[in-house]
Amino acid sequence: MEDKNYFRKKIHEIKTRVRYQETDQMGIVYYGNFFVYFEMGRTEYLRDLGLPYSELEKEHIYFPVAEARCRYRSPAHYDDVLVIQTWVSELKHATVEFSHNVLREGDSTLIAEGSSKLACLNEKRKPAPMPEKLRKLFQ
Amino acid sequence: MEDKNYFRKKIHEIKTRVRYQETDQMGIVYYGNFFVYFEMGRTEYLRDLGLPYSELEKEHIYFPVAEARCRYRSPAHYDDVLVIQTWVSELKHATVEFSHNVLREGDSTLIAEGSSKLACLNEKRKPAPMPEKLRKLFQ
Amino acid sequence: MEDKNYFRKKIHEIKTRVRYQETDQMGIVYYGNFFVYFEMGRTEYLRDLGLPYSELEKEHIYFPVAEARCRYRSPAHYDDVLVIQTWVSELKHATVEFSHNVLREGDSTLIAEGSSKLACLNEKRKPAPMPEKLRKLFQ
Amino acid sequence: MEDKNYFRKKIHEIKTRVRYQETDQMGIVYYGNFFVYFEMGRTEYLRDLGLPYSELEKEHIYFPVAEARCRYRSPAHYDDVLVIQTWVSELKHATVEFSHNVLREGDSTLIAEGSSKLACLNEKRKPAPMPEKLRKLFQ
Repeated sequence: MEDKNYFRKKIHEIKTRVRYQETDQMGIVYYGNFFVYFEMGRTEYLRDLGLPYSELEKEHIYFPVAEARCRYRSPAHYDDVLVIQTWVSELKHATVEFSHNVLREGDSTLIAEGSSKLACLNEKRKPAPMPEKLRKLFQ
Repeated sequence: MEDKNYFRKKIHEIKTRVRYQETDQMGIVYYGNFFVYFEMGRTEYLRDLGLPYSELEKEHIYFPVAEARCRYRSPAHYDDVLVIQTWVSELKHATVEFSHNVLREGDSTLIAEGSSKLACLNEKRKPAPMPEKLRKLFQ
Repeated sequence: MEDKNYFRKKIHEIKTRVRYQETDQMGIVYYGNFFVYFEMGRTEYLRDLGLPYSELEKEHIYFPVAEARCRYRSPAHYDDVLVIQTWVSELKHATVEFSHNVLREGDSTLIAEGSSKLACLNEKRKPAPMPEKLRKLFQ
Repeated sequence: MEDKNYFRKKIHEIKTRVRYQETDQMGIVYYGNFFVYFEMGRTEYLRDLGLPYSELEKEHIYFPVAEARCRYRSPAHYDDVLVIQTWVSELKHATVEFSHNVLREGDSTLIAEGSSKLACLNEKRKPAPMPEKLRKLFQ
């Protein structure tokens, strides 16, 4: 991925263990599931900032994903413990981009790297500037 | 499953092809995915009756699942075409139970059989008797 | 579910947080995902016994699910922390049944209860008696 | 996405109906599920060329995803019929990139556009040049 580390003030880490359900018949984690890991990373990043996403939705602020990408570097397997790193890599008027690395715990192999850009929507589900309290937290 | 064929006036059939995503590292369809197949069977059964579930929800009638079960008879594999049979096996004041068979097209192997019981909820998400128009359709 | 507590020597507990991906448009956890939670419970139960399922598969012993069921008692929501309880409720020559409760942490609401029966297969994927070391651990 | 239409000799189309399971609590298709739609598009594209992916794996040729991306243009909802367009947008020595559009049938709204790059692996799961018969089909 491009160098988008200029915002990398804070890298948040969580761990998750690969579920049997997440594998496919190639014996590895199905590629689409990494976007679920990214979502988990974003959720815990926001909680850590003091603003759980579940509370944002209660205030009728929504952050659907506008763009997502992933590069797969090495396969992950059932029962692997994965480390999901998340940081804010771009902050604009009405969007925020998170970048993510997924590593395997133990041998620190880089499994995947990617990003997810979210757009801010208001209670009418229309594009809206990001609430000031959120912007401040991201900076 | 028990004999619940007394309502078996109508067996509705749909077909679906097993997605790579639906397999697991055992090389077969992950067991939890059969409940997704059951949901597809229910959806098309209702559409065929003239009452798409999407329209029921627009009228704020909800049918969450209260109970579900499945017996796995033979494994299903990637790219298999599955036939999902659905029929109403029990109709009560505020619940309806669907029964399901899943067969493989071609050799007609029985892959799985199961059921899903749905409870009727009103716009306040409280248990409610089934709307009369639905009851009539099911009978 | 029926009373199958006679084996309830040991109840194993894990926790998991509901992912956004696990919800559906009813705003609750999709019913099929509880079978993923059951799988997680079984995985950690076996690890706790000292026999990770990943190692069993390396010895070419497989435990596909032969039967599964779930009763849904109360909805679970995004970001809920769920407690998944797992115990062995029936042990036969070539099958083992696990029973599961899912509770919400905090208010201890019973969310769901169910079971999953696994059949033992050997390296040729044929039904086989359960290996003695496993039988002893389950007892 | 960049203009990668130079290979656009053939656009393959399939249709799929959005499953309830594929929605999330925002009432729209969960973003990760579009990569499942892309996989379905690739599967049917290959079948249409006369080379089902299931047969490639039987010959121990594997095509894991090396890179994937998606831009989300408009939300998709439960029961929508989606048209998934797939074409080969880049062909190299050991990789092939598919591009995808997802449209809603009926109003032809562009829902999402993306791509998935696959790497060829041989029976030892090592990178390998693409088999000649495949290369010819893609050209």
